[in-house]
Amino acid sequence: MNTTVASARPIAAIVLAAGKGTRMKSDRHKVLHPVAGRPMIEHLLASLAELQPARTVVVVGQGRDQLEQQLGDRAELAVQDPQLGTGHAVQQAETALAGFDGDVLILYGDVPFVRPATMRAMLDRLHAEDQPAAVVLGFEPDDPLQYGRVVALRDKISRMVEYKDATEDQRTCRLCNSGLLAVPAARLFELLSRVGNANAQGEYYLPDIVNIAIADGDICAVVTTDDADEVAGINSRSELADAEARWQAVRRRQAMEDGVTLVAPDTVFFSWDTQLGRDVMVEPNVVFGPGVQVADNVVIHAFSHVEGARLESGVSIGPFARLRPGAVLQEGARIGNFVEMKNAVLGPGAKANHLTYLGDARVGAGANIGAGTITCNYDGYFKHETVIGERAFIGSNSALIAPVRIGADAIVAAGSAVSRDVADGELRMVRAEQLVKPGWADSFHDAMKKKKADRKG
Amino acid sequence: MNTTVASARPIAAIVLAAGKGTRMKSDRHKVLHPVAGRPMIEHLLASLAELQPARTVVVVGQGRDQLEQQLGDRAELAVQDPQLGTGHAVQQAETALAGFDGDVLILYGDVPFVRPATMRAMLDRLHAEDQPAAVVLGFEPDDPLQYGRVVALRDKISRMVEYKDATEDQRTCRLCNSGLLAVPAARLFELLSRVGNANAQGEYYLPDIVNIAIADGDICAVVTTDDADEVAGINSRSELADAEARWQAVRRRQAMEDGVTLVAPDTVFFSWDTQLGRDVMVEPNVVFGPGVQVADNVVIHAFSHVEGARLESGVSIGPFARLRPGAVLQEGARIGNFVEMKNAVLGPGAKANHLTYLGDARVGAGANIGAGTITCNYDGYFKHETVIGERAFIGSNSALIAPVRIGADAIVAAGSAVSRDVADGELRMVRAEQLVKPGWADSFHDAMKKKKADRKG
Amino acid sequence: MNTTVASARPIAAIVLAAGKGTRMKSDRHKVLHPVAGRPMIEHLLASLAELQPARTVVVVGQGRDQLEQQLGDRAELAVQDPQLGTGHAVQQAETALAGFDGDVLILYGDVPFVRPATMRAMLDRLHAEDQPAAVVLGFEPDDPLQYGRVVALRDKISRMVEYKDATEDQRTCRLCNSGLLAVPAARLFELLSRVGNANAQGEYYLPDIVNIAIADGDICAVVTTDDADEVAGINSRSELADAEARWQAVRRRQAMEDGVTLVAPDTVFFSWDTQLGRDVMVEPNVVFGPGVQVADNVVIHAFSHVEGARLESGVSIGPFARLRPGAVLQEGARIGNFVEMKNAVLGPGAKANHLTYLGDARVGAGANIGAGTITCNYDGYFKHETVIGERAFIGSNSALIAPVRIGADAIVAAGSAVSRDVADGELRMVRAEQLVKPGWADSFHDAMKKKKADRKG
Repeated sequence: MNTTVASARPIAAIVLAAGKGTRMKSDRHKVLHPVAGRPMIEHLLASLAELQPARTVVVVGQGRDQLEQQLGDRAELAVQDPQLGTGHAVQQAETALAGFDGDVLILYGDVPFVRPATMRAMLDRLHAEDQPAAVVLGFEPDDPLQYGRVVALRDKISRMVEYKDATEDQRTCRLCNSGLLAVPAARLFELLSRVGNANAQGEYYLPDIVNIAIADGDICAVVTTDDADEVAGINSRSELADAEARWQAVRRRQAMEDGVTLVAPDTVFFSWDTQLGRDVMVEPNVVFGPGVQVADNVVIHAFSHVEGARLESGVSIGPFARLRPGAVLQEGARIGNFVEMKNAVLGPGAKANHLTYLGDARVGAGANIGAGTITCNYDGYFKHETVIGERAFIGSNSALIAPVRIGADAIVAAGSAVSRDVADGELRMVRAEQLVKPGWADSFHDAMKKKKADRKG
Repeated sequence: MNTTVASARPIAAIVLAAGKGTRMKSDRHKVLHPVAGRPMIEHLLASLAELQPARTVVVVGQGRDQLEQQLGDRAELAVQDPQLGTGHAVQQAETALAGFDGDVLILYGDVPFVRPATMRAMLDRLHAEDQPAAVVLGFEPDDPLQYGRVVALRDKISRMVEYKDATEDQRTCRLCNSGLLAVPAARLFELLSRVGNANAQGEYYLPDIVNIAIADGDICAVVTTDDADEVAGINSRSELADAEARWQAVRRRQAMEDGVTLVAPDTVFFSWDTQLGRDVMVEPNVVFGPGVQVADNVVIHAFSHVEGARLESGVSIGPFARLRPGAVLQEGARIGNFVEMKNAVLGPGAKANHLTYLGDARVGAGANIGAGTITCNYDGYFKHETVIGERAFIGSNSALIAPVRIGADAIVAAGSAVSRDVADGELRMVRAEQLVKPGWADSFHDAMKKKKADRKG
Repeated sequence: MNTTVASARPIAAIVLAAGKGTRMKSDRHKVLHPVAGRPMIEHLLASLAELQPARTVVVVGQGRDQLEQQLGDRAELAVQDPQLGTGHAVQQAETALAGFDGDVLILYGDVPFVRPATMRAMLDRLHAEDQPAAVVLGFEPDDPLQYGRVVALRDKISRMVEYKDATEDQRTCRLCNSGLLAVPAARLFELLSRVGNANAQGEYYLPDIVNIAIADGDICAVVTTDDADEVAGINSRSELADAEARWQAVRRRQAMEDGVTLVAPDTVFFSWDTQLGRDVMVEPNVVFGPGVQVADNVVIHAFSHVEGARLESGVSIGPFARLRPGAVLQEGARIGNFVEMKNAVLGPGAKANHLTYLGDARVGAGANIGAGTITCNYDGYFKHETVIGERAFIGSNSALIAPVRIGADAIVAAGSAVSRDVADGELRMVRAEQLVKPGWADSFHDAMKKKKADRKG
């Protein structure tokens, strides 16, 4: 083990994302396929951000527009066209990094779950006393398959070998090349300029720079992760599903350790940014979209779908609740079954228990929203707001035609379509006369039975 | 390996389905229990159909009526009563196959996932130069349990042994008898006539015909499948669930290979005939019933249940969508949460986002169906149609009382029960006067609080 | 094997529940966390009840109030404060058991799934001819981890060793101490009085009583369970989830053996008291809360949530059905999607297929409840009943304002808010005039399009 030296050297990341992603069979760029509701490359960039890189260059082939739109000015794009191998891909970042004098981390957009600690370990090794020219991230998969091998004595590399060029002896070596590299910028591009393409594919292979450096007499080192999942690449929808499953398993375990009950952990799906308090109870079959914050002592019943919502302490939702962005449930509020909330605040202790749509609404504390209530927030062109006062009672099957205000303690009679404001303590009823036709139904039944019989006859 | 000779000989299938199915504990015939939404025997018949059999005889014991109703004239039924063993069961098909001069495949209604290629391999082997008298399908399970064994040298059988009659030495043999057989028709019934029942159960065992043929000096051959699941029998609800799980696992993998994202594959349930396009995204917890076609770039959100529906390109449904038979969503249409569609067409770009029932309806392009809209399509006797024009706007909580037409660009005010046609560009409002009672609610609250206190007191 | 002697000696149980449960990170007492919808200690007490214990003492530390509230007078509580080890905990029950002359079973509130047969086997062993002073329940986990070991020759214990005090040799012993003990009451407290706390933690260890008895020359015996899961402790939310998963797996298997089809067993969640008939079909993703009885030939479609409900023969519910306590579906009744029932009876053959809330209602045989029907059962203070007659037809989107009676064969027109009783065979329509404004919508569209353009401009 070499002593590591703390370094203030700046870091640049080159993220390779130029692969065609053919196996995904998708019009979406491979690195934009989501895991836990977030494009995979964003997971990588978030981890990378913990190292505070001075520069980030993403090397892209097809789908440049998609990446530009996703990343904005958070990364520089370099285009690789044509695509002549990984070495060639890294070379495309040279112009973008002109003048950069620091260390370069080479990462892959489809290997998104490398931990910051691993990246740091690579850089630390690069700064060790023996000053390696390059640091490779190695891993030991259960089944080494056809990965390239890292032939090394302790952590000093003697040779990088592609699987197809490996001797039988080298193939028994279980230390594999993840593809990740840390190299000082100046040395990186000098080495790359010497990589040749005299191979069957006519490609410039990135690992060759290690062999060239070793031939120069430099030391090259390998840092080994003991978690092969960390460097798993995502090349197909199956591998995407596998990555999702691994991510969810870790997140569920974490939630339980933090004091959340998951009755059936495998049936709860978190988003990358879900926040959950203590003594939260989550029943089976719950899906969290992005942007959810759940406070302590909240119960989320089965079959709930929650996205962009804030649930304060003591709240209970579902089963069959759908909370959409902007839903805020204040302390002790309750949303029941077949209820949708969007851009709406439900005050403390307020309830909407059945078959209701609350959109663009503010509901006061203790209000009771009857079954089948609809806030009519859209006129086909603009959205309008509904404001409901504290302790107001909205009778079942009512339509509140926004913009409209219902006062505190007011009552809206069941079945009313309310289009004008209701004052505090007022009753509003919008209901036609009860038209009574004695015997009419009996006659109707007789007529229809006859008609039905005639049709069959 | 024997050279196979292409054969134009006709094929007959005898499908044994006379077992009592006691372990299912069901009034439904065992072979009618569904896997992937389809009775298991139908899976078998569909595979068999690829061989274009000239004749199909199903041997049935109890539950003949159920099979007759399911199969109609797609198979002849032969009744086995009493039930005296598998050999006896096959004999019951003799009358039905009188005059048939071709090859007979013996299959089992509760072994429904034998692949057509395997059936073909059995028939090909039957036609090889060495002209075997019978071809047995063998398999090598992980745990041979108490299966009968096929004692063979290469693919030439020397003896079929029931497990209970097998020597210790024979039991170490891992090649097991699946029960499936291919035999020329004439030879089959001749051999069967010589099978005895001098055993503890007093039953006529089908594998005995192989031993008799061998004793005659004939060659009998074994074709071995390397997929033991293919010949797994379904004898209990647990085995039914296992078969379903295996079927679903294969189908999910196929979907992902075809370019479908399954966020959580284990939570998506396909039907036997589900068709999915490229870049379809399926969130967790989606159930497909029979008859679903999904085009490219469709998003199916969590908790959706889809059956007999066609989703065109760019459509988005759910979460909590229910599409029933006859639902057609044209390009870019959108169905939201707690919405049910049945026998209804939603035009291009049209939307029904919340708490709606669309039955027997045609909705024009770009129309907007407000929250809580109900098409009242049933009068207790007959169904009636609702037609909604292009770009029409149906206000929330409206009831459209069919038969009724809403014109293009028309507006139905929120809360309206519309019973007469609405012309193009017209507004229809069906709403009573807003009855206002200032202070009434306050008085009511006072009275009720007093009453509540009185009841407690 | 010793001959067991049937015993009429009374049994007392001491249930230890004084652990802090720190790893649960919960304000709820650890033993009150539910498995299968029932606090874990209740599972234990239910099993214990089969032995008809004369006395049950629960030793509690923190959270005494919670246990008192849960258990009422079904158990005596003894408080352990401070907490000085398991031996000390058992000692706290001495006062409560003063004068009790029988056998004591020592159990653990967080080891809730010990089978009655296992408890009985311990007591039987205690009564065997060799009259052991104590009987320990041992188990052989796959990975013995750091459990205390039971060093024994056949079933005679030579020594109980804590893992940390065990020699390497003793650690290779795979027989572990579950902590459960059976000891005659008099002997128990005599032995406990001699246990010291001269160890690193300064605690009184319960297993020491076995070593003291052996030193006295007594025989102590071990009864070994072959199901390590039976004595698995629940100390964290993960272990709680594991216990739930094991419980559900057993229950699902049992259901299938009893003749229930579970299309996807892993997605069906039973409650501790769910009762299911024969030929019940349960689609994927169904959650049963407590108190559900399902008769034969019932179909429960996907995404249904059922609690406190009785489903008679031939009933069909869901998908997306929610049945709450007091829901009764009589023979052949049908509940469809997005329908909630609470404290309501649906008569034979009656239907409520879409987007409906039935609360505090009685619906007659053959009645048809239209889509979007709401029973308005709550006035903000009291609940009221809705009674619907046989064969009545409730038009879609109607509100039935309870208390209200709809007669037999009556018809309520779609969109009606019915506040007065409807007689048998009568038609009730509550609907305002159809207000027609030709061209109004066209003008509105023009105006809004202009306004929208202006806002953008």
